[in-house]
Amino acid sequence: MILSPTITLTKALVERISVTPEDAGCQPLMTSRLEPLGFNTETMVFDDTTNMWCRKGTEAPVFCFAGHTDVVPAGNLERWHTPPFEAIIKDGMLYGRGAADMKGSLAAMVVATERFVNDYPDHKGSIAFLITSDEEGPFINGTTRVIDTLEARNEKIDYCIVGEPSSTHLVGDIVKNGRRGSISGELEIFGVQGHVAYPQHVKNPIHLAMPALAELSQLHWDNGNEYFPETSFQLSNIQSGTGATNVVPGHLTAWFNLRYSTELTAEKIVDKVNAVLQSHQLDYEIKWTYNGVPFITEPGVLVDATKKAIKTVTDRETELSTSGGTSDGRFIAPTGAQVVELGPCNATIHQVNECVKCDDLDQLTDIYYQTLKNVLL
Amino acid sequence: MILSPTITLTKALVERISVTPEDAGCQPLMTSRLEPLGFNTETMVFDDTTNMWCRKGTEAPVFCFAGHTDVVPAGNLERWHTPPFEAIIKDGMLYGRGAADMKGSLAAMVVATERFVNDYPDHKGSIAFLITSDEEGPFINGTTRVIDTLEARNEKIDYCIVGEPSSTHLVGDIVKNGRRGSISGELEIFGVQGHVAYPQHVKNPIHLAMPALAELSQLHWDNGNEYFPETSFQLSNIQSGTGATNVVPGHLTAWFNLRYSTELTAEKIVDKVNAVLQSHQLDYEIKWTYNGVPFITEPGVLVDATKKAIKTVTDRETELSTSGGTSDGRFIAPTGAQVVELGPCNATIHQVNECVKCDDLDQLTDIYYQTLKNVLL
Repeated sequence: MILSPTITLTKALVERISVTPEDAGCQPLMTSRLEPLGFNTETMVFDDTTNMWCRKGTEAPVFCFAGHTDVVPAGNLERWHTPPFEAIIKDGMLYGRGAADMKGSLAAMVVATERFVNDYPDHKGSIAFLITSDEEGPFINGTTRVIDTLEARNEKIDYCIVGEPSSTHLVGDIVKNGRRGSISGELEIFGVQGHVAYPQHVKNPIHLAMPALAELSQLHWDNGNEYFPETSFQLSNIQSGTGATNVVPGHLTAWFNLRYSTELTAEKIVDKVNAVLQSHQLDYEIKWTYNGVPFITEPGVLVDATKKAIKTVTDRETELSTSGGTSDGRFIAPTGAQVVELGPCNATIHQVNECVKCDDLDQLTDIYYQTLKNVLL
Repeated sequence: MILSPTITLTKALVERISVTPEDAGCQPLMTSRLEPLGFNTETMVFDDTTNMWCRKGTEAPVFCFAGHTDVVPAGNLERWHTPPFEAIIKDGMLYGRGAADMKGSLAAMVVATERFVNDYPDHKGSIAFLITSDEEGPFINGTTRVIDTLEARNEKIDYCIVGEPSSTHLVGDIVKNGRRGSISGELEIFGVQGHVAYPQHVKNPIHLAMPALAELSQLHWDNGNEYFPETSFQLSNIQSGTGATNVVPGHLTAWFNLRYSTELTAEKIVDKVNAVLQSHQLDYEIKWTYNGVPFITEPGVLVDATKKAIKTVTDRETELSTSGGTSDGRFIAPTGAQVVELGPCNATIHQVNECVKCDDLDQLTDIYYQTLKNVLL
């Protein structure tokens, strides 16, 4: 079986056991292909995380491929039909941890760049790779710190494709041109503990919390907008009680998360949650975690170039979406870069028997190649 | 120091380490005092529990002293100022586990009976003792089974004093002439688990539960009545969540308990809870535990005799109450017996350094003696 360059490189990457925060030699493998094309590599190690900023050219505009070499753990090995780090091809599918998220995308980026630079050595602007080994983990020492470094020296990315598996049924059917913001709260509501037989001596924090949490969970936060679905509030955990059936507990803990549109800000959300809780006269504390602000790349050079490339390669009309979780795009977009996420189908990511269609990766390579042409020629 | 007969016997009982379900020789000690008076003892052992039914006479009315020889564990020994099973007297107080709940009462019952039978050998009716070693535990093999045995042979109790520590500040200030009912539910509400970023794919059981639980916790169940405070609903435990902040859980568990008046029945409560949950279209299950039905002894022979005895001995007006937890009275009252609870002050029961005022136990002995006179002469 003769494998395409993209599949060959994907296999080599999947076979490197790079569970977060390990890079396991993936970035050196990529740079060994890019440096002969004229790329300069900067390896940026922050604590346990290996990042690389690899750039060809010094001119603007800077077209950047962004992604991560780390993968989530294999999970239950007994439920894998093939060894997760062996990259087995069967019936046109490549199986292995990271095949779809996102080593296939990394290989497609490298091979597309090789072809493009060979075909158009005199392209305008610069091409760059921003690759981290900590996207699946705490994302503290990854893309965000590389961006900080670039910002500090005023080095700008103009256009960025993040290789996250954005597609649902067919490669390129969905491109993400933004992501919702995410903010989490750990709420603690205080009452007064006591025996259930003496209700006059207790302040039951469960009773106090229910109407307030009911109101928060039923709030209509916004209508979303052209790019974003409406903001969503979800309680993920609630806990109160001593384990005894005859004791009213002293406090209640509830965790919640909001995925919010560009119609809202974290500050407005914090204010609103406090207003609701205070209107119920609760004695409470909240510990907030700011996971990421919402970002949007409106139709323009990058979105148009990407959609046109997908149309050229697959004859498909692409849908723009901002749904789903967070991605490292949230760290890049605030610098002013246009950012889209475009990668293979995401049906099996983070699951056992993660896989990707080989033909899809070859198509993705062609789409990246066409996008480079659309932007840099 | 010369100790009164009641204090001497209390000390002997406290020094027997009768943690539930152990009797540790307490009941034999009592019968060794009662049998010389003409009492016949039936020892009824059910599994790990020792009970006794000890009766003098065959005629009605049957006046019964009821109580338990078992005690709750000592708890943190380092916080006891005296060894919990040594019955140390200091500054007029007797310290030890069970001193107030309820070995002091048992001693007062025995000594009062000795005096009464010696003073009035020709009293009418019968005197009985119904004593268990499993009141503080699961109360499955204790008073309830003795009552079953008596009922099976149609042996009736007419008047019953349970020696539970009913008093608050001064001995006899409160007599309990009934107890609320108690019913508990373990509620499970089902939703559909998923990722917080995809609210369209989940059914959040916390969100579904909040309005229903808010409604239940705010319901006005009844107004109580002359003898009972209003029915009280308390959520004691609530739990939902996977521990992850980005996962909407699949189900929620909530435990609740109602202490209810004679205006309600367990059946009405079950119906009402189901109606509320169904009106919120919830998918749920409830496991009910029936802890005890409410009972009341209205003013009549026993209440009047008790109040008069307290007035004679202490010159105090007694308050009738049905507050507090459950007691074995709930098993005796349904047979048609008049039941009151009368014992020493309860401030230290189940705590470290449990204690009782020696003078109170001597007063209690006098009150029991006067009550016997008021009922059986």
